[in-house]
Amino acid sequence: MLMWQFSACHFLFLRLHRELGEVPFGRAHGSSCAHRGELRHAKRIVVKLGSAVVTRGDECGLALGRLASIVEQVAMLQNQGKEMMIVTSGAVAFGKQRLRHEILLSQSVRQALHSGHNQLKDMSLPVLEARACAAAGQSGLMALYEAMFTQYSTCTAQVLVTNLDFHDDQKRQNLNSTLQELLRMNIVPIINTNDAVVPPPEPNSDLQGVNVISIKDNDSLAARLAVEMKADLLIALSDVEGLYNSPPGTDDAKLIDIFYPGDQQSITYGTKSRVGLGGMEAKVKAALWALQGGTSVVIANGTDPKVTGHVITDIVEGKKVGTFFSEVKPAGPTVEQQTEMARDSGRNLASLHPDQVSHQNISINEINEQSILLLPAAMLKRLSLSAAKLNSLAIGLRQIAVAAQDSVGRVLRRTRVAHNLELEQITVPIGVLLVIFEARPDCLPQVSALAIASGNALLLKGGKEATNTNRVLHQLTQEALSMHGVREAITMSHTREEVEDLCRLDKMIDLIIPRGSSQLVRNIQRAAKGIPVLGHSEGICHVYVDTDASVDKVIKIVRDSKCDYPAACNAMETLLIHRDILRTPLFDQIIDMLRTERVKIHAGPRFASYLTFSPSEAQSLRTEYSDLECCMEVVDSMQEAVDHIHKYGSSHTDVIVTENEDTAEQFLQQLDSACVFWNASSRFADGYRFGLGAEVGISTARIHARGPVGLEGLLTTKWVLRGDGHTAADFSEHGTMKYLHENLPVTQPLAGQRDSN
Amino acid sequence: MLMWQFSACHFLFLRLHRELGEVPFGRAHGSSCAHRGELRHAKRIVVKLGSAVVTRGDECGLALGRLASIVEQVAMLQNQGKEMMIVTSGAVAFGKQRLRHEILLSQSVRQALHSGHNQLKDMSLPVLEARACAAAGQSGLMALYEAMFTQYSTCTAQVLVTNLDFHDDQKRQNLNSTLQELLRMNIVPIINTNDAVVPPPEPNSDLQGVNVISIKDNDSLAARLAVEMKADLLIALSDVEGLYNSPPGTDDAKLIDIFYPGDQQSITYGTKSRVGLGGMEAKVKAALWALQGGTSVVIANGTDPKVTGHVITDIVEGKKVGTFFSEVKPAGPTVEQQTEMARDSGRNLASLHPDQVSHQNISINEINEQSILLLPAAMLKRLSLSAAKLNSLAIGLRQIAVAAQDSVGRVLRRTRVAHNLELEQITVPIGVLLVIFEARPDCLPQVSALAIASGNALLLKGGKEATNTNRVLHQLTQEALSMHGVREAITMSHTREEVEDLCRLDKMIDLIIPRGSSQLVRNIQRAAKGIPVLGHSEGICHVYVDTDASVDKVIKIVRDSKCDYPAACNAMETLLIHRDILRTPLFDQIIDMLRTERVKIHAGPRFASYLTFSPSEAQSLRTEYSDLECCMEVVDSMQEAVDHIHKYGSSHTDVIVTENEDTAEQFLQQLDSACVFWNASSRFADGYRFGLGAEVGISTARIHARGPVGLEGLLTTKWVLRGDGHTAADFSEHGTMKYLHENLPVTQPLAGQRDSN
Repeated sequence: MLMWQFSACHFLFLRLHRELGEVPFGRAHGSSCAHRGELRHAKRIVVKLGSAVVTRGDECGLALGRLASIVEQVAMLQNQGKEMMIVTSGAVAFGKQRLRHEILLSQSVRQALHSGHNQLKDMSLPVLEARACAAAGQSGLMALYEAMFTQYSTCTAQVLVTNLDFHDDQKRQNLNSTLQELLRMNIVPIINTNDAVVPPPEPNSDLQGVNVISIKDNDSLAARLAVEMKADLLIALSDVEGLYNSPPGTDDAKLIDIFYPGDQQSITYGTKSRVGLGGMEAKVKAALWALQGGTSVVIANGTDPKVTGHVITDIVEGKKVGTFFSEVKPAGPTVEQQTEMARDSGRNLASLHPDQVSHQNISINEINEQSILLLPAAMLKRLSLSAAKLNSLAIGLRQIAVAAQDSVGRVLRRTRVAHNLELEQITVPIGVLLVIFEARPDCLPQVSALAIASGNALLLKGGKEATNTNRVLHQLTQEALSMHGVREAITMSHTREEVEDLCRLDKMIDLIIPRGSSQLVRNIQRAAKGIPVLGHSEGICHVYVDTDASVDKVIKIVRDSKCDYPAACNAMETLLIHRDILRTPLFDQIIDMLRTERVKIHAGPRFASYLTFSPSEAQSLRTEYSDLECCMEVVDSMQEAVDHIHKYGSSHTDVIVTENEDTAEQFLQQLDSACVFWNASSRFADGYRFGLGAEVGISTARIHARGPVGLEGLLTTKWVLRGDGHTAADFSEHGTMKYLHENLPVTQPLAGQRDSN
Repeated sequence: MLMWQFSACHFLFLRLHRELGEVPFGRAHGSSCAHRGELRHAKRIVVKLGSAVVTRGDECGLALGRLASIVEQVAMLQNQGKEMMIVTSGAVAFGKQRLRHEILLSQSVRQALHSGHNQLKDMSLPVLEARACAAAGQSGLMALYEAMFTQYSTCTAQVLVTNLDFHDDQKRQNLNSTLQELLRMNIVPIINTNDAVVPPPEPNSDLQGVNVISIKDNDSLAARLAVEMKADLLIALSDVEGLYNSPPGTDDAKLIDIFYPGDQQSITYGTKSRVGLGGMEAKVKAALWALQGGTSVVIANGTDPKVTGHVITDIVEGKKVGTFFSEVKPAGPTVEQQTEMARDSGRNLASLHPDQVSHQNISINEINEQSILLLPAAMLKRLSLSAAKLNSLAIGLRQIAVAAQDSVGRVLRRTRVAHNLELEQITVPIGVLLVIFEARPDCLPQVSALAIASGNALLLKGGKEATNTNRVLHQLTQEALSMHGVREAITMSHTREEVEDLCRLDKMIDLIIPRGSSQLVRNIQRAAKGIPVLGHSEGICHVYVDTDASVDKVIKIVRDSKCDYPAACNAMETLLIHRDILRTPLFDQIIDMLRTERVKIHAGPRFASYLTFSPSEAQSLRTEYSDLECCMEVVDSMQEAVDHIHKYGSSHTDVIVTENEDTAEQFLQQLDSACVFWNASSRFADGYRFGLGAEVGISTARIHARGPVGLEGLLTTKWVLRGDGHTAADFSEHGTMKYLHENLPVTQPLAGQRDSN
């Protein structure tokens, strides 16, 4: 150890001593955590790195980058005051590589020169003895760990043990006090089996099999060590995701999130496990052993490049990674089970007779209205549910109830493909929706009503701020649903699931609808891997004031667009004015109005260039101020306004104010935004105001629903073809049938209308 | 160096000597590459790591994982026979950290104990001299590189130089021959400025500023070194993405893909560049200097965790990363410019009068038909365009031409929101489509016709197999378009752009449609970051044979579904039969027919359990065989068939064969697939057969289009609101207006129909 490294270590030692008096240990040693959330408080953590984690590389033999990021995480947690220990495998593989070189080089150079290009891999080698490999590899492995930890000013210490050491009380006590002392000095002990002194591997083990003894030993070694040291958490990293309910790769295999020992019989161990002797059964046994000893255990994948950089910190933060072993039976269904139930209930919901849906919907509205009216006034205030809001909510719900009558199963298209071969395209629900909303519980009855009306199953995840209100509202909704036996079609996630985890259920959730701040939407868009997200992250709305605009309308519309609710996504952010308006009375009136309303103006570059004393220049023409602020810019023509909006806008809602119908129609036609308005405030871009009933959000996406999304955005279609034994071959060149492709009217009833011939 | 490390190095040295006789140097030194594709042949590569790459960490000070993955890439390329050199910064930062510790520790422990929690960061420190820092850091930095490279059996050597060394001929020659010798021995030289002997930094540099001299020096050092050593490629990694046309962060800033020195005046250097004195201008100067010396240069980001793991290998593979400096002016527009032009042309296309579109479409069809008919017979054969296929193609194009009449601008919904406030929802094109197709040029006229009919701009990327055919077909399409001045609305990417790069243009492309193998679709789905992909990666279609099925229809439909075109996505993969059919004549007939057609049967577990001698058991019930193979499984009821399909299917196309109408309707209603058929072959799931004209693909997504997608799947909607100065405030509690929300008929013409009052 270099002098300065030792000094750093000594310094940290002093620091630790000080902290011991201040920071309490997270929790009492001796009992494992009941759920993942408690893992945050784990103070003493054993990280076990399987051989695959340490040595399995892509091309070059060693997974250096993976190891580096694991070292980084361990050092980080150590610096946060946790006590970290590493149990490592890989010395055998390390040594194997090293000995191979030595042997190759001791063979004659001449032979090496004639044995082809990839001789390092191809040359036949004598079978290497595993224990010799381990001894040869140990020094290299430790040197690597030390070099890496040194970069974080973290000291390491090498400890070699065997399982047998735990059976000898004296040895165990010595080991215990050594490790305690190292931890006390803020040194990370790196523990490996002392392979040189363990019994030899089974006689039939070949070179490929030598890793096995390390893996197997290290699983139980890590468990023994964790219990001996009263660790709070054992993280076992390997090349498997965790524990599956049946062998991975089979049709029904599912990763188990929380494993409760009482359920052990439900696991089927594969006969051809990828991990051989050190396979899952051994891992589970070791994990259960540790669990009984009071240490929580998580088994997770340490080789997946997508997660390796944060797998350890994620586990410590309580995120859903790998399999968590718990002595406490998980309460209630998992979110996957909830989603499964929701989908089943949803399918029943969709197959209810339209009258029933409509009826049910009305009943839910009534209940919701009552429930909202009954909420204590204080809560109403906190939730910003004014009487006006409540009223429009109720009207919206009634509109949905009416629309529900013919939403699902509506025939959009009918085609006679050929004689006796009829095609229909009908509306069906999308499936399972995940709605994530922040502190706006008024969203719950709206979204629930839309889901019921469209036959979709719904998984709700509300903000923490209104948990109780949401719970009450959700119970009322379920009461209404249970009258038709589809209680579970709308479920609410009360678990500690992170939103991120929900967004990964791409096999179970068909559409995610975030309702809240643009930050929420952006986060969800980033988190949703493979699931479409309906919504918009930006609302940069423009109002363009044309030369032919009416003064009154301009003032009214600009004021309303900016000031009615400045934080809304449909509020104006940029005011574009025609150049000819500059220095006219209209211009002065606009400025006066904005001043009176205390709207701060940011000048666009052209606007600034026209003024003697310009307000502060806009930092960007793409800013969403979401406040009593806006950008002002000058354009030469309606066409230039369109170009400006295409370049800087977010395709949300844009407005022209003019009395010239030709200009207006051109603007409406050319502008490529979800909502284009003529002589109306941008604030009308809203599902309720559009007459869609409640809305699930406003979409600026260009596929599926666009603009304010109501009922129809929650529907998709399916194609129903009714034939009489028709085959594609009948229509081939020499076939007997011809395509007719006649469009049929869609007003006819669905079934029982086929030709009888 | 340990003995075995030296041996390994010596061994590689021998290997290199052998290879020198076999592997030719990629290209003559002394002239830079004309485009990125040539970078594959670069033999000698200098990788320059900016200080930010080496030392900027997240929490712990050092970016160990980043450095490890860079070392991995360099070692990999070295092992592939490239000659790699590293120019590194960071010694100053390394030494700074080390000296800080020393100083802190030399202060009294008492003081340290009382100075708060984060004293490492907070404590006031004397200003450290940069050169002292550099000297102190050099050893640690080299130790780290050596430890890392050792893991790949790669030897390193430390070389310290100053810019001045290049001005002294003797010194330069010495340096040159030293480096040549190291490269010849397959050793990676790690080069840094000898900061201890360079002139002191400017007097006002404080501790935060000390990095600057290294960065600045290292940019020109790397360039000088690359030219001196006749390197083919200099990769300069820093914390910037590359060169922007204006300061990053401003509205119009765009990353420059290929920088041609003649265009230098079009660059605006930011005054507040993030990278300080070692900013972009210095980097560009160094890059141009190297370029003039015959070395290609790429400036890229080495700190972005999403790309660091493969940034160097990506650059060497010719991928679009960072900014590539080229002495050759890029020929033709970039794909971004093409896309931009396509969008503009597309907007014009969309605003053409419907009659024009339709007319144009017909003319394109005619041209396409002619062009196809004129293609040499040999080519036709190669493209598998049979007369029958050609015929159905032509019919399909005519159907599209007819449908084009009222596709864009169609009013879907009209609502009187209030007096004089009318809302319309109208169809509009999606925008810019990217269609990626494999070796099927018949797809080109189909997709082009659909794009024109729907007013979308189209970017085509064809397979290499039919480049010339595609070029001819595309020219014909553009001729038709140019008659209406929208020639660029359909462009074809002939550049060397990788498909992956196109899939990243999320600001420019609205929808990606891959047409080809399921592997292609899966790759595209993975590559498309933030752009929706229309298509399906799996077609696991089922035919369920009910107890009440007609024998004839079963045989016809099962044969057609499986054997008509087994590789198609709408071919049957699993045959479900009702238990009561087992051991009936129908069962025997099905088996006989499948035998005759040489269809290999895989037995599902239940089916296998019923048989004395079962065929091979299916490995999974979720297999898409895409060949004359299928899975057979037994179910107890129609309901169980539905459950089976929901569990194992891909929601593509599923068929029931039965004479019982009730059973059939329940199946059609309950089954949740894009296409559900009764007594008809699964092969009918096809846009042309459905009467949609040509199809762009079959979607199994649950939002937007579902099933075979024709014209309508390429449309979205916009909302047009026409008012008379209406504001949201007018409708508030105390406002003067009331919402009417009257549904109006949609048959009225678009414009000029407003109330005059």
